[in-house]
Amino acid sequence: MNQYALLHIPDSRYCFAVGRDEIVIRLRAAKDDRDIRVKLVYGAKYEYQTHRQTVEMTAHYEDNLYKYYEKRLKLEDVRLAYIFQIEENCKTYYYSEDGLTDTYHYPEAFYNFFQMPYINENDRMKIVDWMPGAVFYQIFVDRFCIGDENKDLSYVNMHWGDLPTPKSFAGGDLRGIIKRLDYLQELGINAIYLTPIFQSKSNHKYDIEDYKKIDPMFGTLEDFKELVKKAHEKGIRIVLDAVFNHCSMEMKQFADVLEKGKKSPYYHWFLIQGDYPKPEEMNYECFASCNYMPKLNTANEEVQDFLLDIALYWIREADIDGWRLDVSDEVSHDFWRRFRREVKAEKEDCAIIGENWHDAYTYLMGDQYDSIMNYAFTKACLDYFAHDNFSGEQMAEKLNNILMRNTLPVNRMMLNLLDSHDTHRIFTEVGGDKDKVLSAIALEVIFPGATCLYYGTEICMEGGYDPDSRRCFNWDRQQWDRGFFEEVRQLLRYKRKDIVQKGDVRIYAVDEVLHVERRYEKRKLILRINMTGEERLGIASGKYTIEEGEGKTS
Amino acid sequence: MNQYALLHIPDSRYCFAVGRDEIVIRLRAAKDDRDIRVKLVYGAKYEYQTHRQTVEMTAHYEDNLYKYYEKRLKLEDVRLAYIFQIEENCKTYYYSEDGLTDTYHYPEAFYNFFQMPYINENDRMKIVDWMPGAVFYQIFVDRFCIGDENKDLSYVNMHWGDLPTPKSFAGGDLRGIIKRLDYLQELGINAIYLTPIFQSKSNHKYDIEDYKKIDPMFGTLEDFKELVKKAHEKGIRIVLDAVFNHCSMEMKQFADVLEKGKKSPYYHWFLIQGDYPKPEEMNYECFASCNYMPKLNTANEEVQDFLLDIALYWIREADIDGWRLDVSDEVSHDFWRRFRREVKAEKEDCAIIGENWHDAYTYLMGDQYDSIMNYAFTKACLDYFAHDNFSGEQMAEKLNNILMRNTLPVNRMMLNLLDSHDTHRIFTEVGGDKDKVLSAIALEVIFPGATCLYYGTEICMEGGYDPDSRRCFNWDRQQWDRGFFEEVRQLLRYKRKDIVQKGDVRIYAVDEVLHVERRYEKRKLILRINMTGEERLGIASGKYTIEEGEGKTS
Repeated sequence: MNQYALLHIPDSRYCFAVGRDEIVIRLRAAKDDRDIRVKLVYGAKYEYQTHRQTVEMTAHYEDNLYKYYEKRLKLEDVRLAYIFQIEENCKTYYYSEDGLTDTYHYPEAFYNFFQMPYINENDRMKIVDWMPGAVFYQIFVDRFCIGDENKDLSYVNMHWGDLPTPKSFAGGDLRGIIKRLDYLQELGINAIYLTPIFQSKSNHKYDIEDYKKIDPMFGTLEDFKELVKKAHEKGIRIVLDAVFNHCSMEMKQFADVLEKGKKSPYYHWFLIQGDYPKPEEMNYECFASCNYMPKLNTANEEVQDFLLDIALYWIREADIDGWRLDVSDEVSHDFWRRFRREVKAEKEDCAIIGENWHDAYTYLMGDQYDSIMNYAFTKACLDYFAHDNFSGEQMAEKLNNILMRNTLPVNRMMLNLLDSHDTHRIFTEVGGDKDKVLSAIALEVIFPGATCLYYGTEICMEGGYDPDSRRCFNWDRQQWDRGFFEEVRQLLRYKRKDIVQKGDVRIYAVDEVLHVERRYEKRKLILRINMTGEERLGIASGKYTIEEGEGKTS
Repeated sequence: MNQYALLHIPDSRYCFAVGRDEIVIRLRAAKDDRDIRVKLVYGAKYEYQTHRQTVEMTAHYEDNLYKYYEKRLKLEDVRLAYIFQIEENCKTYYYSEDGLTDTYHYPEAFYNFFQMPYINENDRMKIVDWMPGAVFYQIFVDRFCIGDENKDLSYVNMHWGDLPTPKSFAGGDLRGIIKRLDYLQELGINAIYLTPIFQSKSNHKYDIEDYKKIDPMFGTLEDFKELVKKAHEKGIRIVLDAVFNHCSMEMKQFADVLEKGKKSPYYHWFLIQGDYPKPEEMNYECFASCNYMPKLNTANEEVQDFLLDIALYWIREADIDGWRLDVSDEVSHDFWRRFRREVKAEKEDCAIIGENWHDAYTYLMGDQYDSIMNYAFTKACLDYFAHDNFSGEQMAEKLNNILMRNTLPVNRMMLNLLDSHDTHRIFTEVGGDKDKVLSAIALEVIFPGATCLYYGTEICMEGGYDPDSRRCFNWDRQQWDRGFFEEVRQLLRYKRKDIVQKGDVRIYAVDEVLHVERRYEKRKLILRINMTGEERLGIASGKYTIEEGEGKTS
């Protein structure tokens, strides 16, 4: 047995509560160790010396090196002690906090068993019930649709449909989204994520001047409230972009510091070296190296209060359903904890979705976000569908690896995406191959978590990196590929099924064809994707199949 | 190279801030991989594609399977991206969020580098400055010293010096501790941890009826305030026991629920199944299976407020210096976060020490405790000094393993102990071998972290498990081993040295003799312990040596 491969971390993605009296325990071992049997020896902590149960564990996931055993347990006493018993060739080993040993001394187990000391309800990650079935549509507002025909269009500096530059304004607005709600319903989405809509000079509005004001280019407070109300009537939820890492240098508080320096009451809202912020010298912290986006000091309680007031205002005023958190990994855990507490107290099923491009486990332990934009999934899809870096086997391994980064409740809320305003468009990445885009969407839908479609993917919109990925939506239906559109629509409907929202998942390859198998109660659904370059298992290259039917629960 | 052994977890004990602009990064690899060289390739996150630095890492710690490379970095830009470059036999590998690869594509590094996205001051674990040099003395109050000669002794039911039963009362009190402060100063301790002193019917007082009242057996509020004041005058800090997991069934709130059931305003302060708590049926959650210690529902905000008021009261009223948290692993993270926020706001250098017998990393990330009672260290000492389970080599491996459970700041605050009121006494465990006890104390002092001596260890007190480990202190100096006492006193003085409080640590064995090496600035200190059963390196079996002198910083 490869003992170097063994890994278990208590109170982590390797051991977590999934209910008031239910937990999941995982153990990692080497994939090559085909002959081992893993058992969980568990019991109530205070009686573990004398009363224990043993149950066999099965490996549910495999990545390139490891397999992951998983066991769900319903507990009578939620103060759990456990160790692993590993059998290989008639020999028995024990894996505890003291590592792998030949023997295990139960009378002194209280020193080195693993434990889940108690399931405290206020620590447990609760699932936002609409997230596992959510099909998001991300809208870059300036480029989606002009709805208000009477507005002042003097700021618009491009023709609808021209290629955008970083400084282009096309005129899209909130009334445009309201106008297209029927369309979005037809497409089958049930949640919209809007890039920022608050007052800002830029087209993207990630440099915000006034967080409580809808940007006049996009409309009014009334327009926004009408959008939310009408969307809700159609069962569509609205998630806004919380740009809380930084603001615009024209926000009045920073402007005050620019003028008064240390004498400004807002001086400590920012992280400035010296008496005055000097934009040309960049002597203050900012987003990336953009001097016009000063970083907010979220360790300052006044700043926390200011931002939380905004977060709660839009829930109370407009009844929004979630916040997507911009550059959230650079903001403090401490702030996000307070954010969660206050936001969830206001609206329990308000979704909190971080923009973390990397392993975000420490933000997803139950005290901060519910979910992140799953860019690790995006990258895997690019490697598999676009760049030919992965075989079917490697893709299965990578997807399993991604699932093992987080707990089951979090996996069911991850925001899976193929592209966004911050990447190339998927259609462009796959060289315009529609089959590949459809297969990728199929994977995105059947994979656990919420699905997020970037506006225009359903009509094969092209685009390279920013600003090219932010082109205007083409509303001339004559130019759409109706067959493609219809297939996207059909795929998105799968997200409504219990089996896709709640089912167990197994991901593997057969003959290099990727298999994503979901099981729920007595049903089974299998997505197969063939990216081998030739027909396999009766599936043409680039294509997918989905089969559903009766199936024993594994 | 054994790629199964590689481990790095971002934002964890493998990557953490040690200052405003300073971080430590660790990588785990197989101990047997003698020929690898590990380099850290790091740079500012937003420029990582084009600007990177490379620095070699060295392995500082080795346990039975792994070695741990560590590098401390001072950063100009605290938004750090990094990967590891591993060289073996002229081949170069890369270790990133995507695991070990032959090549690494820096242009797309933003998808899979490791990162420390930002050092937020409100997330960073700060060191309680007196903890790394603390020498604690744990006092079980009823058994230490009777100071108040005039008090009502009618509750005392044993003669001082008789063997205690679970129900014995010997009469020790707070004035007894005041009386012995000179003694404690002579011994060289600078902190006292008192088991509970609040109103309770038991001798141990872990079942508390009134958290704001000093138990009359122990004295008055004035006695306690005098104790703290006089201790502070001698540079001795006072830490109290916070029994917040459970209370006594005679606490008025539980009594009210016993009487009124669901109609009591305190019903939700507890976790009860049914309309009334029924002690004989144990239909409510309690500590272990003790129906007289009902568990407090710390998810309830009123309970949180109640307990926090107590925590702050004793800081404000008596100026205590820390809280030791009883059964802290069964209380919610959520509660401890609020506890830390409020306690630290009241007194920044108030120490928070959890009673977690197991890996407590998730409580030690900067948002909850500072420290725990290091029972993993206790167990290692028992295996090495008492039970002959470990060779010197194995002990070195185990101690390194324990150090790798936590970050450097936490390691400097761990409460290392050889025994407590919850274990057998060390003197009894080693079969009365004074050399072994002295060697164990030497290790406890030279090892990073605070040292905690259980009352009476310095006079070779014996005792098995509770109640035997809670015998009366023998104040007849004629019966003490003065040589032993003096050597303990000399050993404790080492904790005052910067090199012991702040120095780097390397732990290894030479010829099965345990070596604990500390280095600070240009000084070097080495503790050697020989438990081989025969003379080695000029050290008699069971004995230790400490050498100090000039030494290059490694």
